[in-house]
Amino acid sequence: MTALPDLASTGRTRLGRMRKRGTPDRAVLDEILAAGFLCHLGVVLDGHPMVVPTIYGATGDTIYFHGSVASPSLRDSPGTEVCVTVSHLDGIVLARSVFEHGINYRSAMVFGVPRVVTDPDEKLDGLRCLSEQVAKGQWGYARLPSRKELAATTLLAMSLAEASVKVRVGPPDDGDSPDAEEGRWAGVVPVRSVRGEPVPDPALPDPGMPVPEHIRSMVTKD
Amino acid sequence: MTALPDLASTGRTRLGRMRKRGTPDRAVLDEILAAGFLCHLGVVLDGHPMVVPTIYGATGDTIYFHGSVASPSLRDSPGTEVCVTVSHLDGIVLARSVFEHGINYRSAMVFGVPRVVTDPDEKLDGLRCLSEQVAKGQWGYARLPSRKELAATTLLAMSLAEASVKVRVGPPDDGDSPDAEEGRWAGVVPVRSVRGEPVPDPALPDPGMPVPEHIRSMVTKD
Repeated sequence: MTALPDLASTGRTRLGRMRKRGTPDRAVLDEILAAGFLCHLGVVLDGHPMVVPTIYGATGDTIYFHGSVASPSLRDSPGTEVCVTVSHLDGIVLARSVFEHGINYRSAMVFGVPRVVTDPDEKLDGLRCLSEQVAKGQWGYARLPSRKELAATTLLAMSLAEASVKVRVGPPDDGDSPDAEEGRWAGVVPVRSVRGEPVPDPALPDPGMPVPEHIRSMVTKD
Repeated sequence: MTALPDLASTGRTRLGRMRKRGTPDRAVLDEILAAGFLCHLGVVLDGHPMVVPTIYGATGDTIYFHGSVASPSLRDSPGTEVCVTVSHLDGIVLARSVFEHGINYRSAMVFGVPRVVTDPDEKLDGLRCLSEQVAKGQWGYARLPSRKELAATTLLAMSLAEASVKVRVGPPDDGDSPDAEEGRWAGVVPVRSVRGEPVPDPALPDPGMPVPEHIRSMVTKD
Protein backbone atom coordinates (compact mmCIF):
# COMPACT_ATOMS: atom_id res chain seq x y z
CA MET A 1 0.00 0.00 0.00
CA THR A 2 2.90 2.36 0.66
CA ALA A 3 6.63 2.46 0.37
CA LEU A 4 6.97 4.89 3.24
CA PRO A 5 9.18 3.88 6.14
CA ASP A 6 7.83 2.53 9.38
CA LEU A 7 6.57 5.02 11.92
CA ALA A 8 9.17 6.81 13.94
CA SER A 9 9.40 5.67 17.52
CA THR A 10 9.43 8.67 19.83
CA GLY A 11 8.90 9.18 23.51
CA ARG A 12 5.18 9.59 23.09
CA THR A 13 4.57 6.76 20.70
CA ARG A 14 6.29 4.38 23.10
CA LEU A 15 4.28 5.52 26.10
CA GLY A 16 2.63 3.16 28.54
CA ARG A 17 -0.17 0.99 27.32
CA MET A 18 0.33 2.02 23.76
CA ARG A 19 3.17 -0.41 23.47
CA LYS A 20 0.89 -3.30 24.20
CA ARG A 21 -1.10 -3.38 21.01
CA GLY A 22 1.05 -0.97 19.07
CA THR A 23 2.32 -1.71 15.63
CA PRO A 24 4.91 0.28 13.69
CA ASP A 25 3.34 -0.63 10.36
CA ARG A 26 2.81 2.42 8.22
CA ALA A 27 0.30 0.61 6.02
CA VAL A 28 -1.93 0.05 9.06
CA LEU A 29 -1.86 3.77 9.80
CA ASP A 30 -2.87 4.54 6.23
CA GLU A 31 -5.70 2.04 6.36
CA ILE A 32 -7.04 3.44 9.63
CA LEU A 33 -6.93 6.98 8.29
CA ALA A 34 -8.55 5.94 5.00
CA ALA A 35 -11.38 4.14 6.77
CA GLY A 36 -12.94 7.27 8.25
CA PHE A 37 -13.16 11.02 8.15
CA LEU A 38 -13.96 11.93 11.77
CA CYS A 39 -11.06 12.58 14.11
CA HIS A 40 -10.69 13.89 17.64
CA LEU A 41 -8.36 16.85 17.75
CA GLY A 42 -6.61 17.48 21.04
CA VAL A 43 -5.10 20.83 21.91
CA VAL A 44 -3.82 22.49 25.05
CA LEU A 45 -5.61 25.74 25.86
CA ASP A 46 -4.28 27.76 28.77
CA GLY A 47 -2.72 24.58 30.07
CA HIS A 48 -5.95 22.58 29.85
CA PRO A 49 -6.67 19.75 27.43
CA MET A 50 -9.51 20.13 24.97
CA VAL A 51 -10.72 17.45 22.57
CA VAL A 52 -12.89 18.44 19.61
CA PRO A 53 -14.41 16.16 16.97
CA THR A 54 -13.76 17.36 13.45
CA ILE A 55 -13.35 16.04 9.93
CA TYR A 56 -10.03 15.34 8.27
CA GLY A 57 -8.51 14.23 5.01
CA ALA A 58 -5.29 12.24 4.71
CA THR A 59 -3.07 11.87 1.69
CA GLY A 60 0.52 10.76 1.35
CA ASP A 61 2.25 11.80 4.53
CA THR A 62 -0.08 14.69 5.35
CA ILE A 63 -3.31 15.03 7.30
CA TYR A 64 -5.53 18.06 6.66
CA PHE A 65 -8.15 19.53 8.96
CA HIS A 66 -9.89 22.81 9.64
CA GLY A 67 -8.24 25.33 11.89
CA SER A 68 -11.16 27.00 13.55
CA VAL A 69 -12.74 23.98 15.18
CA ALA A 70 -10.67 23.87 18.31
CA SER A 71 -10.26 27.55 18.86
CA PRO A 72 -9.03 30.70 17.22
CA SER A 73 -5.80 30.21 19.16
CA LEU A 74 -4.92 27.16 17.09
CA ARG A 75 -5.42 29.15 13.92
CA ASP A 76 -3.63 32.23 15.14
CA SER A 77 -0.75 30.62 17.02
CA PRO A 78 1.61 28.76 14.75
CA GLY A 79 3.63 26.27 16.71
CA THR A 80 0.77 24.89 18.77
CA GLU A 81 1.12 21.18 19.23
CA VAL A 82 -1.85 18.92 18.64
CA CYS A 83 -2.80 15.27 18.82
CA VAL A 84 -5.15 13.96 16.14
CA THR A 85 -6.77 10.66 17.04
CA VAL A 86 -8.84 8.53 14.68
CA SER A 87 -10.69 5.54 16.14
CA HIS A 88 -12.86 2.84 14.66
CA LEU A 89 -14.98 0.69 16.95
CA ASP A 90 -15.12 -2.85 15.57
CA GLY A 91 -16.66 -4.95 18.29
CA ILE A 92 -17.62 -5.59 21.89
CA VAL A 93 -15.47 -8.32 23.39
CA LEU A 94 -17.52 -10.47 25.75
CA ALA A 95 -15.23 -12.56 27.91
CA ARG A 96 -15.92 -15.09 30.66
CA SER A 97 -14.86 -12.58 33.31
CA VAL A 98 -15.79 -8.92 33.57
CA PHE A 99 -12.10 -8.12 33.92
CA GLU A 100 -11.31 -9.42 30.42
CA HIS A 101 -14.08 -7.49 28.69
CA GLY A 102 -13.10 -4.86 26.20
CA ILE A 103 -13.49 -3.66 22.66
CA ASN A 104 -12.06 -4.46 19.28
CA TYR A 105 -10.88 -1.30 17.63
CA ARG A 106 -8.37 0.35 15.34
CA SER A 107 -6.97 3.68 16.37
CA ALA A 108 -4.27 6.06 15.27
CA MET A 109 -2.76 8.97 17.13
CA VAL A 110 -0.82 11.55 15.16
CA PHE A 111 1.32 14.06 17.02
CA GLY A 112 2.72 17.23 15.61
CA VAL A 113 2.63 20.94 15.02
CA PRO A 114 0.21 21.81 12.23
CA ARG A 115 0.95 24.57 9.78
CA VAL A 116 -1.58 26.89 8.21
CA VAL A 117 -1.82 26.17 4.50
CA THR A 118 -1.33 29.45 2.68
CA ASP A 119 -0.28 28.39 -0.82
CA PRO A 120 -3.45 28.70 -2.94
CA ASP A 121 -2.78 25.52 -4.91
CA GLU A 122 -2.06 23.44 -1.83
CA LYS A 123 -5.08 24.92 -0.10
CA LEU A 124 -7.35 23.84 -2.91
CA ASP A 125 -5.69 20.42 -3.04
CA GLY A 126 -6.02 20.01 0.72
CA LEU A 127 -9.65 21.03 0.75
CA ARG A 128 -10.34 18.61 -2.08
CA CYS A 129 -8.60 15.87 -0.11
CA LEU A 130 -10.72 16.65 2.94
CA SER A 131 -13.93 16.96 0.94
CA GLU A 132 -13.36 13.75 -1.01
CA GLN A 133 -12.58 11.82 2.15
CA VAL A 134 -15.93 12.84 3.65
CA ALA A 135 -18.01 12.68 0.49
CA LYS A 136 -16.30 11.12 -2.49
CA GLY A 137 -17.34 12.64 -5.78
CA GLN A 138 -18.79 15.84 -4.38
CA TRP A 139 -15.75 17.91 -5.34
CA GLY A 140 -16.63 17.33 -8.98
CA TYR A 141 -20.38 17.82 -8.41
CA ALA A 142 -20.97 20.61 -5.88
CA ARG A 143 -20.05 24.24 -6.48
CA LEU A 144 -16.36 24.71 -5.71
CA PRO A 145 -15.24 27.28 -3.14
CA SER A 146 -15.24 30.90 -4.24
CA ARG A 147 -12.27 33.13 -3.57
CA LYS A 148 -14.15 34.61 -0.62
CA GLU A 149 -14.99 31.20 0.82
CA LEU A 150 -11.39 30.10 0.43
CA ALA A 151 -10.25 33.17 2.31
CA ALA A 152 -12.74 32.41 5.09
CA THR A 153 -11.42 28.87 5.48
CA THR A 154 -8.39 28.08 7.60
CA LEU A 155 -6.86 24.81 6.51
CA LEU A 156 -4.23 23.14 8.64
CA ALA A 157 -1.77 20.51 7.47
CA MET A 158 0.30 18.19 9.61
CA SER A 159 2.88 15.52 8.93
CA LEU A 160 2.05 11.87 9.66
CA ALA A 161 5.68 11.22 10.63
CA GLU A 162 5.04 10.90 14.37
CA ALA A 163 2.17 8.51 14.81
CA SER A 164 1.11 5.55 16.85
CA VAL A 165 -1.44 2.93 15.94
CA LYS A 166 -3.23 0.41 18.12
CA VAL A 167 -5.37 -2.44 16.94
CA ARG A 168 -7.27 -5.13 18.81
CA VAL A 169 -8.96 -7.91 16.91
CA GLY A 170 -10.31 -11.33 17.68
CA PRO A 171 -11.99 -13.20 20.50
CA PRO A 172 -11.58 -12.60 24.24
CA ASP A 173 -8.30 -13.51 25.87
CA ASP A 174 -9.63 -15.86 28.53
CA GLY A 175 -10.44 -18.85 26.32
CA ASP A 176 -7.77 -20.93 28.01
CA SER A 177 -8.29 -19.64 31.54
CA PRO A 178 -9.98 -21.51 34.40
CA ASP A 179 -12.99 -19.25 33.75
CA ALA A 180 -13.48 -21.01 30.42
CA GLU A 181 -14.44 -24.18 32.22
CA GLU A 182 -17.55 -22.67 33.72
CA GLY A 183 -19.53 -22.89 30.52
CA ARG A 184 -20.38 -19.26 29.82
CA TRP A 185 -20.86 -18.03 26.28
CA ALA A 186 -18.03 -15.81 25.08
CA GLY A 187 -17.31 -14.05 21.85
CA VAL A 188 -17.62 -10.75 20.05
CA VAL A 189 -20.56 -8.59 19.05
CA PRO A 190 -19.29 -6.88 15.90
CA VAL A 191 -19.89 -3.16 15.51
CA ARG A 192 -19.67 -1.20 12.30
CA SER A 193 -20.59 2.16 10.89
CA VAL A 194 -23.29 1.95 8.25
CA ARG A 195 -24.49 4.53 5.70
CA GLY A 196 -28.17 4.44 4.88
CA GLU A 197 -30.39 5.63 2.04
CA PRO A 198 -29.81 9.28 1.08
CA VAL A 199 -32.43 11.63 2.54
CA PRO A 200 -33.30 14.45 0.11
CA ASP A 201 -33.25 18.03 1.34
CA PRO A 202 -36.92 19.09 1.72
CA ALA A 203 -35.89 22.32 -0.01
CA LEU A 204 -35.25 20.49 -3.29
CA PRO A 205 -37.75 21.62 -5.95
CA ASP A 206 -38.45 17.95 -6.60
CA PRO A 207 -37.64 15.71 -3.61
CA GLY A 208 -37.98 12.74 -5.93
CA MET A 209 -35.17 13.86 -8.22
CA PRO A 210 -32.73 11.06 -8.93
CA VAL A 211 -29.85 10.68 -6.49
CA PRO A 212 -26.54 11.03 -8.35
CA GLU A 213 -24.64 7.79 -8.71
CA HIS A 214 -21.63 8.94 -6.64
CA ILE A 215 -23.97 9.73 -3.75
CA ARG A 216 -25.90 6.50 -4.13
CA SER A 217 -22.59 4.62 -3.98
CA MET A 218 -21.93 6.06 -0.50
CA VAL A 219 -24.64 3.77 0.88
CA THR A 220 -23.30 0.69 2.64
CA LYS A 221 -23.89 -2.55 0.74
CA ASP A 222 -24.34 -5.66 2.78
CA MET B 1 -35.19 12.60 31.69
CA THR B 2 -33.51 14.50 34.48
CA ALA B 3 -34.22 17.16 37.02
CA LEU B 4 -30.64 18.30 37.15
CA PRO B 5 -29.93 21.92 36.44
CA ASP B 6 -28.70 23.16 33.09
CA LEU B 7 -25.01 22.91 32.38
CA ALA B 8 -22.80 25.49 33.92
CA SER B 9 -21.47 28.06 31.51
CA THR B 10 -17.75 28.49 32.01
CA GLY B 11 -14.98 30.03 30.00
CA ARG B 12 -14.30 26.80 28.17
CA THR B 13 -17.86 25.82 27.45
CA ARG B 14 -18.45 29.21 25.86
CA LEU B 15 -15.37 29.06 23.67
CA GLY B 16 -15.38 29.89 19.98
CA ARG B 17 -17.35 27.73 17.65
CA MET B 18 -18.89 25.78 20.46
CA ARG B 19 -21.40 28.53 20.97
CA LYS B 20 -22.79 28.09 17.51
CA ARG B 21 -24.49 24.77 17.93
CA GLY B 22 -24.22 24.58 21.67
CA THR B 23 -27.13 23.82 23.91
CA PRO B 24 -27.21 24.09 27.70
CA ASP B 25 -29.74 21.27 28.00
CA ARG B 26 -28.66 18.71 30.55
CA ALA B 27 -31.01 16.10 29.13
CA VAL B 28 -29.19 16.30 25.79
CA LEU B 29 -25.89 15.64 27.55
CA ASP B 30 -27.37 12.59 29.27
CA GLU B 31 -28.75 11.27 25.99
CA ILE B 32 -25.42 11.70 24.22
CA LEU B 33 -23.57 9.92 27.01
CA ALA B 34 -26.16 7.12 27.18
CA ALA B 35 -25.98 6.53 23.43
CA GLY B 36 -22.41 5.22 23.45
CA PHE B 37 -19.55 3.88 25.50
CA LEU B 38 -16.47 5.04 23.59
CA CYS B 39 -14.99 8.39 24.52
CA HIS B 40 -11.84 10.29 23.61
CA LEU B 41 -9.89 11.22 26.69
CA GLY B 42 -7.63 14.24 26.38
CA VAL B 43 -4.77 14.87 28.76
CA VAL B 44 -1.75 17.13 28.82
CA LEU B 45 1.52 15.23 29.13
CA ASP B 46 4.66 17.30 29.56
CA GLY B 47 2.81 20.20 28.02
CA HIS B 48 1.67 18.21 24.99
CA PRO B 49 -1.89 17.13 24.22
CA MET B 50 -2.69 13.44 23.98
CA VAL B 51 -6.04 11.97 22.98
CA VAL B 52 -6.78 8.34 23.77
CA PRO B 53 -9.92 6.37 22.93
CA THR B 54 -11.31 4.50 25.90
CA ILE B 55 -14.59 3.21 27.29
CA TYR B 56 -16.71 5.01 29.85
CA GLY B 57 -19.84 4.66 31.90
CA ALA B 58 -22.06 7.55 32.95
CA THR B 59 -24.59 7.63 35.75
CA GLY B 60 -26.24 10.53 37.55
CA ASP B 61 -23.72 13.33 37.52
CA THR B 62 -20.62 11.16 37.26
CA ILE B 63 -18.62 9.69 34.40
CA TYR B 64 -16.35 6.71 35.08
CA PHE B 65 -13.37 5.57 33.04
CA HIS B 66 -10.16 3.64 33.47
CA GLY B 67 -7.10 5.42 34.71
CA SER B 68 -4.33 3.61 32.96
CA VAL B 69 -5.36 4.26 29.39
CA ALA B 70 -3.80 7.65 28.96
CA SER B 71 -0.72 7.12 31.02
CA PRO B 72 0.45 6.20 34.46
CA SER B 73 0.79 9.91 35.15
CA LEU B 74 -2.96 10.35 35.08
CA ARG B 75 -3.37 7.56 37.60
CA ASP B 76 -0.56 8.69 39.82
CA SER B 77 -1.07 12.44 39.69
CA PRO B 78 -4.28 13.51 41.32
CA GLY B 79 -5.30 16.93 40.11
CA THR B 80 -4.58 16.34 36.44
CA GLU B 81 -7.19 18.00 34.30
CA VAL B 82 -8.80 16.08 31.46
CA CYS B 83 -11.33 16.56 28.69
CA VAL B 84 -13.62 13.65 27.91
CA THR B 85 -15.32 13.92 24.54
CA VAL B 86 -18.09 11.64 23.30
CA SER B 87 -19.17 11.96 19.65
CA HIS B 88 -21.80 10.29 17.55
CA LEU B 89 -21.67 10.63 13.77
CA ASP B 90 -25.21 10.81 12.40
CA GLY B 91 -24.87 11.82 8.79
CA ILE B 92 -22.95 13.32 5.90
CA VAL B 93 -24.45 16.66 4.89
CA LEU B 94 -24.28 17.08 1.11
CA ALA B 95 -24.90 20.69 0.22
CA ARG B 96 -25.01 22.50 -3.12
CA SER B 97 -21.60 24.05 -2.46
CA VAL B 98 -18.50 22.39 -1.10
CA PHE B 99 -18.26 25.16 1.47
CA GLU B 100 -21.56 24.16 3.10
CA HIS B 101 -20.73 20.48 3.39
CA GLY B 102 -20.44 19.01 6.84
CA ILE B 103 -21.66 16.33 9.17
CA ASN B 104 -24.62 15.74 11.41
CA TYR B 105 -23.43 14.74 14.84
CA ARG B 106 -24.00 14.86 18.56
CA SER B 107 -21.04 15.50 20.79
CA ALA B 108 -20.34 16.22 24.42
CA MET B 109 -17.20 17.54 26.03
CA VAL B 110 -16.77 17.13 29.76
CA PHE B 111 -14.03 19.05 31.54
CA GLY B 112 -12.71 18.37 34.99
CA VAL B 113 -10.23 16.83 37.34
CA PRO B 114 -10.93 13.13 37.81
CA ARG B 115 -10.48 11.46 41.16
CA VAL B 116 -9.27 7.93 41.74
CA VAL B 117 -12.11 5.85 43.17
CA THR B 118 -10.82 4.20 46.31
CA ASP B 119 -13.99 3.33 48.22
CA PRO B 120 -14.57 -0.40 47.54
CA ASP B 121 -18.32 -0.04 47.21
CA GLU B 122 -18.11 2.89 44.83
CA LYS B 123 -15.41 1.14 42.87
CA LEU B 124 -17.62 -1.88 42.33
CA ASP B 125 -20.59 0.36 41.50
CA GLY B 126 -18.50 2.37 39.06
CA LEU B 127 -17.10 -0.71 37.34
CA ARG B 128 -20.62 -2.11 37.05
CA CYS B 129 -21.76 1.17 35.51
CA LEU B 130 -18.92 1.05 33.00
CA SER B 131 -19.41 -2.64 32.25
CA GLU B 132 -23.17 -2.34 31.82
CA GLN B 133 -22.80 0.64 29.53
CA VAL B 134 -20.55 -1.36 27.22
CA ALA B 135 -22.29 -4.71 27.51
CA LYS B 136 -25.63 -4.62 29.27
CA GLY B 137 -26.37 -7.75 31.26
CA GLN B 138 -22.81 -9.04 31.41
CA TRP B 139 -22.30 -7.89 35.01
CA GLY B 140 -24.87 -10.46 36.08
CA TYR B 141 -23.54 -13.14 33.71
CA ALA B 142 -19.74 -12.99 33.57
CA ARG B 143 -17.48 -13.74 36.53
CA LEU B 144 -17.24 -10.62 38.69
CA PRO B 145 -13.85 -9.07 39.47
CA SER B 146 -11.78 -10.79 42.12
CA ARG B 147 -10.12 -8.81 44.88
CA LYS B 148 -6.86 -9.04 42.99
CA GLU B 149 -8.42 -7.83 39.76
CA LEU B 150 -10.09 -4.96 41.58
CA ALA B 151 -6.76 -3.94 43.03
CA ALA B 152 -5.19 -4.04 39.57
CA THR B 153 -7.87 -1.72 38.17
CA THR B 154 -7.63 2.03 38.47
CA LEU B 155 -11.07 3.56 38.16
CA LEU B 156 -11.44 7.29 37.72
CA ALA B 157 -14.58 9.30 38.39
CA MET B 158 -15.36 12.80 37.21
CA SER B 159 -18.24 15.20 37.66
CA LEU B 160 -20.43 16.08 34.70
CA ALA B 161 -20.90 19.60 36.05
CA GLU B 162 -18.72 21.34 33.49
CA ALA B 163 -19.80 20.13 30.10
CA SER B 164 -20.61 21.38 26.66
CA VAL B 165 -22.77 19.72 24.05
CA LYS B 166 -23.04 20.35 20.34
CA VAL B 167 -25.61 18.92 18.01
CA ARG B 168 -26.19 19.34 14.29
CA VAL B 169 -29.23 17.82 12.66
CA GLY B 170 -31.15 18.25 9.45
CA PRO B 171 -30.56 19.14 5.82
CA PRO B 172 -27.83 21.39 4.41
CA ASP B 173 -28.03 25.11 5.08
CA ASP B 174 -27.96 26.33 1.48
CA GLY B 175 -31.48 25.36 0.45
CA ASP B 176 -32.45 28.99 0.03
CA SER B 177 -29.17 30.21 -1.44
CA PRO B 178 -28.52 31.11 -5.09
CA ASP B 179 -26.71 27.76 -5.34
CA ALA B 180 -30.06 26.01 -4.86
CA GLU B 181 -31.21 27.29 -8.23
CA GLU B 182 -28.60 25.31 -10.12
CA GLY B 183 -30.46 22.04 -9.78
CA ARG B 184 -28.00 19.88 -7.86
CA TRP B 185 -29.19 17.13 -5.56
CA ALA B 186 -28.69 17.94 -1.88
CA GLY B 187 -29.49 16.11 1.29
CA VAL B 188 -28.04 13.85 3.93
CA VAL B 189 -26.54 10.38 3.87
CA PRO B 190 -27.41 9.04 7.31
CA VAL B 191 -24.71 7.23 9.27
CA ARG B 192 -25.24 4.97 12.22
CA SER B 193 -23.42 2.43 14.32
CA VAL B 194 -24.79 -1.08 13.93
CA ARG B 195 -24.21 -4.21 16.01
CA GLY B 196 -24.20 -7.46 14.10
CA GLU B 197 -24.70 -11.13 14.92
CA PRO B 198 -22.61 -12.33 17.86
CA VAL B 199 -19.47 -14.23 16.80
CA PRO B 200 -18.69 -17.13 19.14
CA ASP B 201 -15.19 -17.48 20.57
CA PRO B 202 -13.55 -20.38 18.67
CA ALA B 203 -12.34 -21.57 22.09
CA LEU B 204 -15.90 -22.39 23.19
CA PRO B 205 -16.28 -26.15 23.68
CA ASP B 206 -19.38 -25.94 21.49
CA PRO B 207 -19.34 -22.93 19.14
CA GLY B 208 -23.00 -23.62 18.46
CA MET B 209 -24.03 -23.13 22.08
CA PRO B 210 -27.02 -20.81 22.40
CA VAL B 211 -26.25 -17.12 22.68
CA PRO B 212 -27.68 -15.74 25.95
CA GLU B 213 -30.69 -13.51 25.49
CA HIS B 214 -29.01 -10.41 26.92
CA ILE B 215 -26.22 -10.76 24.36
CA ARG B 216 -28.62 -11.48 21.52
CA SER B 217 -30.49 -8.31 22.44
CA MET B 218 -27.33 -6.25 21.81
CA VAL B 219 -27.78 -6.84 18.07
CA THR B 220 -29.25 -3.89 16.19
CA LYS B 221 -32.81 -4.46 14.99
CA ASP B 222 -33.84 -2.69 11.84
